[in-house]
Amino acid sequence: MAIDDLADKVLDIGRRRGFFWPAFEIYGGVAGFYDLGPYGALLKQNIIEEWRRHFIKRYPDLIVEIETPVITPEKVFIASGHVENFVDPIVGCKKCGRFFRADQLIEEKLGVKAEGKSVEELTDIISKSGLRCPVCGGELGEVRLFNLLFRTQIGPYQGSVGFFRPEAAQGMFISFKRVHQVMRNKLPIGIAQIGRVARNEISPRQGLIRLREFTIMEFEFFFDQNEPGADEYIDKVRNEKLSLITADMRREKIEEPQSFTIDEALRQGVIKTPWMAFWMYESTLFLEKIGVPRTNIVFEEKLPEERAHYSRQTFDQLVKTARWGWIEVAGHAYRGDYDLSRHKQFSGEDLTVRKQLREPVERRTLVVRLNKAVLGRELKDKLDSIQQQIKSMSPEVLKRELDNKGFIEVSGVRLSRNHLVIEEVVEKVVTISVTPHVVEPSFGSERLLYVAMEYALREKQGRLILSFPRRIAPVKVAVLPLVDNEKIVGMAKRIYDMLKETDLMVTYDDSGSIGRRYARADEIGVPVCVTIDYQSLTDGTVTLRDRDSWKQVRVHVDKLVESLRRFIYDNVEIEELGPIFFSEEKE
Amino acid sequence: MAIDDLADKVLDIGRRRGFFWPAFEIYGGVAGFYDLGPYGALLKQNIIEEWRRHFIKRYPDLIVEIETPVITPEKVFIASGHVENFVDPIVGCKKCGRFFRADQLIEEKLGVKAEGKSVEELTDIISKSGLRCPVCGGELGEVRLFNLLFRTQIGPYQGSVGFFRPEAAQGMFISFKRVHQVMRNKLPIGIAQIGRVARNEISPRQGLIRLREFTIMEFEFFFDQNEPGADEYIDKVRNEKLSLITADMRREKIEEPQSFTIDEALRQGVIKTPWMAFWMYESTLFLEKIGVPRTNIVFEEKLPEERAHYSRQTFDQLVKTARWGWIEVAGHAYRGDYDLSRHKQFSGEDLTVRKQLREPVERRTLVVRLNKAVLGRELKDKLDSIQQQIKSMSPEVLKRELDNKGFIEVSGVRLSRNHLVIEEVVEKVVTISVTPHVVEPSFGSERLLYVAMEYALREKQGRLILSFPRRIAPVKVAVLPLVDNEKIVGMAKRIYDMLKETDLMVTYDDSGSIGRRYARADEIGVPVCVTIDYQSLTDGTVTLRDRDSWKQVRVHVDKLVESLRRFIYDNVEIEELGPIFFSEEKE
Repeated sequence: MAIDDLADKVLDIGRRRGFFWPAFEIYGGVAGFYDLGPYGALLKQNIIEEWRRHFIKRYPDLIVEIETPVITPEKVFIASGHVENFVDPIVGCKKCGRFFRADQLIEEKLGVKAEGKSVEELTDIISKSGLRCPVCGGELGEVRLFNLLFRTQIGPYQGSVGFFRPEAAQGMFISFKRVHQVMRNKLPIGIAQIGRVARNEISPRQGLIRLREFTIMEFEFFFDQNEPGADEYIDKVRNEKLSLITADMRREKIEEPQSFTIDEALRQGVIKTPWMAFWMYESTLFLEKIGVPRTNIVFEEKLPEERAHYSRQTFDQLVKTARWGWIEVAGHAYRGDYDLSRHKQFSGEDLTVRKQLREPVERRTLVVRLNKAVLGRELKDKLDSIQQQIKSMSPEVLKRELDNKGFIEVSGVRLSRNHLVIEEVVEKVVTISVTPHVVEPSFGSERLLYVAMEYALREKQGRLILSFPRRIAPVKVAVLPLVDNEKIVGMAKRIYDMLKETDLMVTYDDSGSIGRRYARADEIGVPVCVTIDYQSLTDGTVTLRDRDSWKQVRVHVDKLVESLRRFIYDNVEIEELGPIFFSEEKE
Repeated sequence: MAIDDLADKVLDIGRRRGFFWPAFEIYGGVAGFYDLGPYGALLKQNIIEEWRRHFIKRYPDLIVEIETPVITPEKVFIASGHVENFVDPIVGCKKCGRFFRADQLIEEKLGVKAEGKSVEELTDIISKSGLRCPVCGGELGEVRLFNLLFRTQIGPYQGSVGFFRPEAAQGMFISFKRVHQVMRNKLPIGIAQIGRVARNEISPRQGLIRLREFTIMEFEFFFDQNEPGADEYIDKVRNEKLSLITADMRREKIEEPQSFTIDEALRQGVIKTPWMAFWMYESTLFLEKIGVPRTNIVFEEKLPEERAHYSRQTFDQLVKTARWGWIEVAGHAYRGDYDLSRHKQFSGEDLTVRKQLREPVERRTLVVRLNKAVLGRELKDKLDSIQQQIKSMSPEVLKRELDNKGFIEVSGVRLSRNHLVIEEVVEKVVTISVTPHVVEPSFGSERLLYVAMEYALREKQGRLILSFPRRIAPVKVAVLPLVDNEKIVGMAKRIYDMLKETDLMVTYDDSGSIGRRYARADEIGVPVCVTIDYQSLTDGTVTLRDRDSWKQVRVHVDKLVESLRRFIYDNVEIEELGPIFFSEEKE
């Protein structure tokens, strides 16, 4: 199938068969918002469930899932740096009033790289190049920063600002301490969340690929930077390969990805921390489960100026698509201790973890106190307040100030060296405080849905087939009476009723020829059709038809549920379920 | 267990074992927002999955699930009536600036019924009674209406207002036409959605029970009012009983619910439409599945003044709780054609459904046109615009106005009877347009989570046990090596690794005595523990211990997964899985 063709057919099936369509259609739509129809919603649920199985259920010792609110008070995003940094440069047309994302407009119209430039630089480029409004040709104004957080007010009090979260991550950071506690102080520990996030994009244009609101699946993986505890996991995957385009390669204009074993990537420092490499590899396996071949998955490192403010290293996980080229379906960020440190600072809560040492170590700390003997009597009534304040100050800062200036001022009183006693105390300690470091794999589920559809699409004898991996197929089984005969229909309905009570999503179709019904089922990716025919009435067998090979086998009704489960969940070949009935499709 | 005790213990386990806790704790919390911890998130997922199985997978011919955005443009909520009607009366203290919900304050402090009263009436009650601020004693201001929609701005354009949806329903209404189409024009059809909603409550105070943000599970069930197509479904449940407190009973101060068969409730008009009765009954069965006995479920009808603006009849589905008395866990609203009609009117889109008639019927319609013969020449240049306007008006409205006033005014021109030709046209039609009516069952998942925990809690020999229905238990299996013996631990780990790859959520615990570990598993409701002991090493059997009876049976490892599945999903007794090993718990 030609490339453009492929994408068009996905969009066509998407709309015609009810996978997805633009939201608010009857009101003219709003860019960046999509509905998922019945099959799209099922597909997304199955992708989410596959993610959960892959990352959480398979690693119950490492990862737990929580759920935190979407609406979040301002304090959290001030601490996280999003109020200051979660911004895009915007420029408005002075004539028609339309807004554009300034860096993108420059890149598109002038072919100049503009990501990461300051508003002054962008304004300068626009005015020097004479770039004008692409819609009306009017003059463009000054570039300014637009914050992408959706803002609201919580409760009746003005000034009680809240935001719609742009990532689920902050929920994991601010609840880290409590989760760590209920999980009996495990470290490393990953805290996952699957939920809605929203980003107020200036002018989203890529359909399902760039949404203002979507479902994120991400986890924050907390570990002790000095003892990551990753060895036993890394050992299993040491020789597995990742396809990387590093920041260095990008600077040297090398566009072809290079294959690194995990061992090489870690030893060469290409990936900065072992857990990041481990989860990047697991993320590759996950994409394979939803139908993307490994050859079409690449990790591209962000350049420092492209990275989010919290990140020490980021790899975008890219997948090749027909419509949009290589698109990011996941981001892998090494957030260091940025978030926990910031929340510690802004909330005043201790977000460190106590770590038991194998053997005691000496810890030297400075202690500062007042030398009451030399303090004048006139200070007596201020003594308490001065003492309090000195206690609350960092001894290191205080000493440095004293060394620099020769005095410090506390409660309006000038204290010099001899008013204070500064001592170094040496203790033996068996536990220390650790602020865990964090790596974060983060997936957008709607992009995965689109990607799964593109990779599933096949054309066979002029028919479209969505060959989803069976586990993620929206509908698992279609029950079809061969002909409109009372007994056959009766048996078909009984089988249908039986299957409805199982975990298998099932549909029933009795309209049109059997060929048409197979085609209809193929088009939405139903892995197996159960057909009830005349023979069924005499020997209790039915046919199972495989969506991909179009082969049919006969199975006894008593073994039906078990056979379907094996086919869907254990991925066995259709031939293993029973004798071949026939293997040519009759239209 | 004493009632208060019970609730306290739920809250204690909730926090201590990580089911739920107030969100944003490190920043002092924000009323109305909760986090779900690892076990709470799993419990909620299982309740949602049970809901999906019960209402959607069991009725694939009737109900489909979709997903629409949380952020919604203003137009939608103007049309739906929420911008005007989704309000609570609020009153502020002139001294301390605090706000209160006016009707609740009056009911609490004065013992007067105030729900549904106008702001003027409420202000009057406050000033006449001399009611003052309950916090500082200051004077209260005038009562005004506060809109409970969280407001935001979509994109960079001021005035492009959006709201965080307070119900998922509008997504189903505005996409009804498209879903109806992709589902091959089925009617009746239910469109379900499970997703986040938010209501900016003035001062929420009941923990997990009254949240500003929560996950709704609801469906809009569309049917032809004249041919609901419910008979085959109602027939199956005609003699089943519902426990009702009707509006009439409430007016007569009858507080004890009365038992009605569905047949009686429909024949007596107590429930206004059959589908509502059907789904109320199914909702009772659903609550039983999550552990609420039928005797503790009551449907209370709302009085007209208590109903939402869109509703023709509403029943709250109440469940008895220890902490909060009878609480609403679901609402059942008969929304009529309100929503589709409003969206039709505001969007201009035809949201009706074509219905094929069994035999043609005569349809009489009024047609109005200008009588050009008697129109003065001076109107000639206005003719087109007058004609356009008359076309766009409803002929019935126009005729009524003409009959009442003797003239109508169009484009500033006064037209009387003889300027217009009004004719009745008779046609034979075989299809008609139907605006479907809607009943809506709507559940709050966090309340169900709380209710499930309260109903699951047991105390036995001084230990707390969460006896969840097995399907909804957060963790399904705990794997425990009896003692710290290398071979036993090795076998336990192999079993654990095997179970991780299944659909069963599994945990591993090797810390402390076996009794402690059983207790720890019971407390979070793990239905079954798998213990590996010395005998396991010789004959390959392990023990399965039932959370509720504390009985143990021996099962061979080869049959383990199958046995666990039967125990969890098919709800068999533990004795059916193998020979009793012992049935007394040793601490």
